[in-house]
Amino acid sequence: MITGHFTEVKEDRPTLAGMQATIRWLIAEKDGAPNFAMRVIEIKRRGEKIPLHRHGYEHEVLIIEGEGNVLGPAGAKPVAYGSFVFVPANEEHGFENTGDVPFRFICVIPKQ
Amino acid sequence: MITGHFTEVKEDRPTLAGMQATIRWLIAEKDGAPNFAMRVIEIKRRGEKIPLHRHGYEHEVLIIEGEGNVLGPAGAKPVAYGSFVFVPANEEHGFENTGDVPFRFICVIPKQ
Repeated sequence: MITGHFTEVKEDRPTLAGMQATIRWLIAEKDGAPNFAMRVIEIKRRGEKIPLHRHGYEHEVLIIEGEGNVLGPAGAKPVAYGSFVFVPANEEHGFENTGDVPFRFICVIPKQ
Repeated sequence: MITGHFTEVKEDRPTLAGMQATIRWLIAEKDGAPNFAMRVIEIKRRGEKIPLHRHGYEHEVLIIEGEGNVLGPAGAKPVAYGSFVFVPANEEHGFENTGDVPFRFICVIPKQ
């Protein structure tokens, strides 16, 4: 069993251009996780965003703090603590902070 | 894209005997999720627990509300909002609520 707190995990910048966000890899292949990885993604300030993008694997997301929008081809949808989002592979998506505190969510992806 | 709030998802009782908990399947195979499932598990009152058990697949857990213990063969470890737990397949584990509000966590498992 491995336990920890997300604030103890190194905060990185995602490699995708234009992402105004940080990422922490909580549980991943490095920890012996065989099938999927759990990350915490944070957009710190109102108006900052992860612009629309797509990739060949799905996301399973749950918002754990703050307020924001999930962005898609059809527009923006407000989300907050307790909201979940399933983004299928190859579907365009993004996120933005619309509140006064960091907008923070869990994002689980399959092993790369 | 599928979005929702965990409180809108049907709250079930887990099938394992002795579990003083509820489970909500937020994103799973029924939603087209191809690789893993995200659930919210809740232990409502102080002293209630999911007793020690094991199974042949891993858990990736993040605590999103309340206070509790993660239980293992070596004893109990306190966790709260932001704590994460990786439970490898076949490792004994359990959870208990040690606070005054519902103890709630995300638990991701591979597709069964």
